[in-house]
Amino acid sequence: MKYDLIVSEDSHGLCDVKGFQLAGVSCDIRNKNNDRLDLALIKSSTPAIAAGVFTTNDVKAAPVLVDVEHLWKSPTISAVVANSGNANACTGERGLKDAKEMCSLVAKKLKLKERDVLVCSTGRIGEFMPMEKISKGIDKAFEVLSDSKEQSVNAAEAILTSDTRKKTISVKVKCGKHEFNIAGMAKGAGMIEPNMATMLCFIASDVKISQQLLKTCLAKSVGMTFNCITVDGDMSTNDTVLVLCNGESEVEITEQNKSLFEAFQKALEKVCAYLARHIVADGERITKVVQVNILSARDESQAEKVAKAIANSLLVKSSWYGSDPNWGRLADAAGYARTGIVFEKMDLNYDGIEVLRQGVVIDENKKLWKKAVAKKEFVININLNLGKASWTVLTTDLSEGYVDFNKGE
Amino acid sequence: MKYDLIVSEDSHGLCDVKGFQLAGVSCDIRNKNNDRLDLALIKSSTPAIAAGVFTTNDVKAAPVLVDVEHLWKSPTISAVVANSGNANACTGERGLKDAKEMCSLVAKKLKLKERDVLVCSTGRIGEFMPMEKISKGIDKAFEVLSDSKEQSVNAAEAILTSDTRKKTISVKVKCGKHEFNIAGMAKGAGMIEPNMATMLCFIASDVKISQQLLKTCLAKSVGMTFNCITVDGDMSTNDTVLVLCNGESEVEITEQNKSLFEAFQKALEKVCAYLARHIVADGERITKVVQVNILSARDESQAEKVAKAIANSLLVKSSWYGSDPNWGRLADAAGYARTGIVFEKMDLNYDGIEVLRQGVVIDENKKLWKKAVAKKEFVININLNLGKASWTVLTTDLSEGYVDFNKGE
Repeated sequence: MKYDLIVSEDSHGLCDVKGFQLAGVSCDIRNKNNDRLDLALIKSSTPAIAAGVFTTNDVKAAPVLVDVEHLWKSPTISAVVANSGNANACTGERGLKDAKEMCSLVAKKLKLKERDVLVCSTGRIGEFMPMEKISKGIDKAFEVLSDSKEQSVNAAEAILTSDTRKKTISVKVKCGKHEFNIAGMAKGAGMIEPNMATMLCFIASDVKISQQLLKTCLAKSVGMTFNCITVDGDMSTNDTVLVLCNGESEVEITEQNKSLFEAFQKALEKVCAYLARHIVADGERITKVVQVNILSARDESQAEKVAKAIANSLLVKSSWYGSDPNWGRLADAAGYARTGIVFEKMDLNYDGIEVLRQGVVIDENKKLWKKAVAKKEFVININLNLGKASWTVLTTDLSEGYVDFNKGE
Repeated sequence: MKYDLIVSEDSHGLCDVKGFQLAGVSCDIRNKNNDRLDLALIKSSTPAIAAGVFTTNDVKAAPVLVDVEHLWKSPTISAVVANSGNANACTGERGLKDAKEMCSLVAKKLKLKERDVLVCSTGRIGEFMPMEKISKGIDKAFEVLSDSKEQSVNAAEAILTSDTRKKTISVKVKCGKHEFNIAGMAKGAGMIEPNMATMLCFIASDVKISQQLLKTCLAKSVGMTFNCITVDGDMSTNDTVLVLCNGESEVEITEQNKSLFEAFQKALEKVCAYLARHIVADGERITKVVQVNILSARDESQAEKVAKAIANSLLVKSSWYGSDPNWGRLADAAGYARTGIVFEKMDLNYDGIEVLRQGVVIDENKKLWKKAVAKKEFVININLNLGKASWTVLTTDLSEGYVDFNKGE
């Protein structure tokens, strides 16, 4: 049985999935007295099977700790509350209490338990949540909660911080007589680094699925997408990818039904890949998106280390910003990953234009390299010629604007 | 027996050590038709016991490979030739031939063997050495070779690349009736990262010492100094620290004579520490030098990883540039080192001004933190309260100027 994925990029977001209601409101978390949207609510009509992937940072924000606990206590989740402007990270006992209180405030409205609600926060680290404002924001969110396009878009905007635009995608899947939907929204633009990013991502689907299988599918999708992007090498305290499946389509995903299973996995990957790419492309003050493919590595670990060393090198990223095809800096970074690469075996090309063949420079292509590196998006392929493993990282250049933007007060 | 170290900072360099002659000349390696000094020669009157520490990058420049071979073949070295403007890295067989030829040209002048000479190069990666120019430069160097202050300073200037100033130090050591000298010169301003830097360092002394003991002393000194600095996290293909001891003072360093041994070790550390600090302080377009001390770690490895994560974080470095005491970014970076730190146990202070006590913010000090972080040099102490180990890294802020400077063509 074949399947079709009908993809709507830059869609209205989660309202495209049956049984999900959304809200995006402003409650002035940033103390700026403007109407910036800063609190989002996601509600499923029925308890949804849920799974999550979280930051591996030793310093985990309070909402991350609370969500891990709630997902462990209960396989189904009915609502998620998220805010921007304050990360509720490094806030100790009071932060934990506040994160739980956010769940509790939503749960009370729905006559559910605290553990039926998840919470996500993003923004400045080390400041306490303004709980009075949050409480009013939650009230406001329930007033406007709906399956309208407007509130879905508002929710996608309320989670943004330094992002310049919302990031949403919807995928309709047709597989024989079956039809189901999956949609996602995400935020993230700085502190982006594998495992994962200052990144929040919310995915909703109307399939029926077991929590165990959903976890497996999510881990696979995240590994290939969100864990392969970097902007600045800084991994955050709050990274979260959540997926909720409410079963409203009546389509059941099991490993036994291979076509449906594959269709769901592919659709989930599509959603993750799109959002990951758009997080990179919206990286703070970036001017270029660069895909680094490490091929013919001895093993995946080598390929990954080499790819990340290049993708995070300040010298490499600065030269991309200046459209300088400085392959020497790439070779240097590949070498300091210290995985045992052999420069004399290395092939390298920019967008297919040969730069190095077995460590020898193809100088006559010099003008063409420059053209490739001057583009807004290009691909770098490095063949280590040591084995069969590969790894890809999506990264960006580093601009003066990044430093200016992040220099603070 | 006590000893005294008489330190001359910003000295004339290696000419302060008996029996060393120097030269710094220009031979237009950069093809710019200016008179920039770009070739240095160091010659010892007698064969000097030598030891070296080299980059651990998988991609090692040709001169590094040649020096390792020469030091293995012969414990004594009579001369070193060094150039800036071209790194002779990623240049394959031809690069190796050129590096050997540089040694050979010098050896012929001195009627010695190729293996009695070492070679160092720094500059752009991936371009062949202009050997005709180099050959003329070596001729020129022999014409002016002397123990004069002028040529010693010229040598220290000829090895510079993006540095804004020469880096030299001399130490006279008095220990009872014994007196000996040790002096050093170094270059390095970008691609600075532990193990080590795009860094060349040449140290000369007039002590007598065995190669084995000299190696041990050098390794210890480098571990505590050059391996604890970072500007941009990029480790180069050419890093080299060489030390030559020609015995002219007749003072013999052995482990048995504890006072003399300790005096020599301290003096060597002093030279390395001074040059390492000045490499950081001359970091490309930096505005601040920051010392990060990680204390009470479980073990040294944890302390080192946490220190380096903070010292290399783009977000942390950008906030220092803006004089923003954003301790949340420090905590985040400490966490993503993933060594098992516990935020709730962490103490943090800026120049002694308390910021965190067991994970709780001391908010009343806010104005004082800002003052500390606005200084050109400050110290950050982080107490992990997990054990007894510690590690220190010397790092810099990251400015828009760094990106501008490195964006290339």
